[in-house]
Amino acid sequence: IEAADAATATALAGNLHEVDLADVLMALPPGDRSLFVLLLGARFDFTALTEVDQSVRIEILEALPSNVVADGLRELESDDAVYILEDLDEAQKFEILSQLPLPERTALQRSLDYPEESAGRRMQTDFIAVAPFWTVGQTIDYLRNEKDLPDDFYEIFVIDPRYRLLGTVSLDRMLRTQRHVRIGEVMNEARHLVKATEDQEVVARIFERYNLLSAAVIDEADRLVGVITIDDIVDVIQQEAEEDLRALAGVGDEEISDSVLETVRGRFVWLFFNIFTAFAAAAVISSFEYSIGEMVALAALMPIVASMGGNAGAQSMTVAVRALATGDIDKRNALRTIRREAVVGLVNGVLLAILIGTISGLWFRNLGLGLVMGAALIVNLVVAGLAGILIPLTLNRLRVDPAVASSVFVTTVTDVVGFFAFLGLATWLLIG
Amino acid sequence: IEAADAATATALAGNLHEVDLADVLMALPPGDRSLFVLLLGARFDFTALTEVDQSVRIEILEALPSNVVADGLRELESDDAVYILEDLDEAQKFEILSQLPLPERTALQRSLDYPEESAGRRMQTDFIAVAPFWTVGQTIDYLRNEKDLPDDFYEIFVIDPRYRLLGTVSLDRMLRTQRHVRIGEVMNEARHLVKATEDQEVVARIFERYNLLSAAVIDEADRLVGVITIDDIVDVIQQEAEEDLRALAGVGDEEISDSVLETVRGRFVWLFFNIFTAFAAAAVISSFEYSIGEMVALAALMPIVASMGGNAGAQSMTVAVRALATGDIDKRNALRTIRREAVVGLVNGVLLAILIGTISGLWFRNLGLGLVMGAALIVNLVVAGLAGILIPLTLNRLRVDPAVASSVFVTTVTDVVGFFAFLGLATWLLIG
Repeated sequence: IEAADAATATALAGNLHEVDLADVLMALPPGDRSLFVLLLGARFDFTALTEVDQSVRIEILEALPSNVVADGLRELESDDAVYILEDLDEAQKFEILSQLPLPERTALQRSLDYPEESAGRRMQTDFIAVAPFWTVGQTIDYLRNEKDLPDDFYEIFVIDPRYRLLGTVSLDRMLRTQRHVRIGEVMNEARHLVKATEDQEVVARIFERYNLLSAAVIDEADRLVGVITIDDIVDVIQQEAEEDLRALAGVGDEEISDSVLETVRGRFVWLFFNIFTAFAAAAVISSFEYSIGEMVALAALMPIVASMGGNAGAQSMTVAVRALATGDIDKRNALRTIRREAVVGLVNGVLLAILIGTISGLWFRNLGLGLVMGAALIVNLVVAGLAGILIPLTLNRLRVDPAVASSVFVTTVTDVVGFFAFLGLATWLLIG
Repeated sequence: IEAADAATATALAGNLHEVDLADVLMALPPGDRSLFVLLLGARFDFTALTEVDQSVRIEILEALPSNVVADGLRELESDDAVYILEDLDEAQKFEILSQLPLPERTALQRSLDYPEESAGRRMQTDFIAVAPFWTVGQTIDYLRNEKDLPDDFYEIFVIDPRYRLLGTVSLDRMLRTQRHVRIGEVMNEARHLVKATEDQEVVARIFERYNLLSAAVIDEADRLVGVITIDDIVDVIQQEAEEDLRALAGVGDEEISDSVLETVRGRFVWLFFNIFTAFAAAAVISSFEYSIGEMVALAALMPIVASMGGNAGAQSMTVAVRALATGDIDKRNALRTIRREAVVGLVNGVLLAILIGTISGLWFRNLGLGLVMGAALIVNLVVAGLAGILIPLTLNRLRVDPAVASSVFVTTVTDVVGFFAFLGLATWLLIG
């Protein structure tokens, strides 16, 4: 389709929304993507690059001449430009930045100097700030006549001569206030300030908790340096909930467009750590070889005890990991939660013991086997409930992300305890 | 602390943010919560009730006299009032609504008539709408002089005489435009309209995709009936990502404040369905009893094959479930994704086969056993990769939520295939 036909490409992408343009990019074969951007020239909206997968973005940016990228970035808001630049290697970043005019280059460079995933990277450095003694009318006249304003803004900041934030005025307040009123009289105290070095997840929690639409960002000297808006934070909030899901399943941040090699690398690490769990369980079983040789039915039933414990452990662990992430578990209710998990494990254990114990006893026509099965299930379900809460709590205390590391430990506990309780009880009561 | 001492309570809760007030409520013992609300009287901000857990909200509302609740709701925005009312039983809802003045009662009733979790329930019914022939100056004067305006608004809607939406004007556009300009000239075409009956998750996707701050809600006759703002949607976006995590682990929507009984009920269902998986695996093992009796090492090693397959299946399933939820998998790339999962499974299978096969062979000083182990791992990892993608795709096609149902099926496949491949190959090559 794309035999260097700029007219067709323009017709195709002409007035697409940036997101739909990103979809077009993703659907093109890899080699054609940068060609397509070049064909569109100035009509290509670089905002679309914030919406494609990271690997696709890097591929396109590396194939484009740096002056084209620099021209594209000039049209963007500063937070989008930073988002596009931040994944490139230092040499390329420098080449692109050096083609930008000084004020824009300085602003981007300053954002890029903040740590990765910090508020400083996500903030927009263009904002409207006025003095408290201005009147509403004066401010509106300034907004009407000044040409070099940010594309969108949602509130007006009030600052002192040293750029320290005194308060904010929402735009609806501006519109409904008489012209003669002074800004200082209608401003709200700025309550939820964000430090530029703050982690974006912490910022997301503040937005979520206080239902903010935007928040002022300040530097170490308490000077106003930018503003973070909710649209940048929505992605962080979603990613953050999804990160826990992926971490618990051991898949990292893979994307559907990743290559086989990238995917294998991401997933193998997780499988590798599970080898230890698997062999720990195998060692327990192996120590009961004699009993299994005497009664082979044990081999058929033992995975049931381990897998039920594994499922129950995963349930209690999932709740604990999310509750830790959202701050729903703290010192006050930790003890109550631990007690609750033990009781829930006990109740579910008794229910499963009755059901599974009966089926097993009938299947092998062995009452004793059914009773051993039931007892092992109760033990393992209580242990699973406790492991599911205590392991994430401990990891959290040790400042290890509980979502990443809990799963291996919980599975090891439920496997080892499951096999040991069942085979041990069986050996003691049925074989010995 | 709370010996009916209103002064202390007021001092304590006086100027707390609604969210912090909600935290105070959650920390109080159950019986004292409604007492605390009564003590604060008119100084209690009912918005705090939107921030507490559902069970706590219902408990407080049921203990309060309906006229107190009605008075509290009058102060709220309509979407918050609906959120508080919607979980109550019909009789109580009716009693509270009947104490409200007619216009407010009608507005709330109309929102409540929309289906649960629809846009109609989440929308705010107060908004600013003007005609296109008004000038910017006229509109600002109206906003300055009219007393009965919504508390906050983020854009101005432009409508025709039949209440159909013509466009929207952002507030920053209003502030930077000269007074004489007509609204019709500065309005943007309203692109992302939401039907009131639309599911809130679909609405969340639209907000996320197009980075919206607010969207107009229309009824079946295309009339403007409300506006949804991003702060209502942030919760939906977060819940939705979290729902998949919880569904995959089988824990439903339990909260840390739920009782033991509620928690047991939610979790037992999931464990119950896993009984079938467990017995299916046990039946496969049982059919190889003779082989296990001949070589007990098989019993120790077989769970390794099953659990590695289970982990790999969970990885590919987690990626597939999220990709289906976010629309990243569609017809175009489904085939490519399936092929990729098979190849990733093969590569990881070979890596694990080399590692685990060698350890197993050395452990039991049996080269053949190591080879059988490796072969079974390769088979199970490929099957796990395929099951992890094909089962969610199939469930999605059948309009069953893949997050809820995939896990049981994938585990069954990886367990059954794992045990069968390992024990079958061992019987054929080592025993038979």
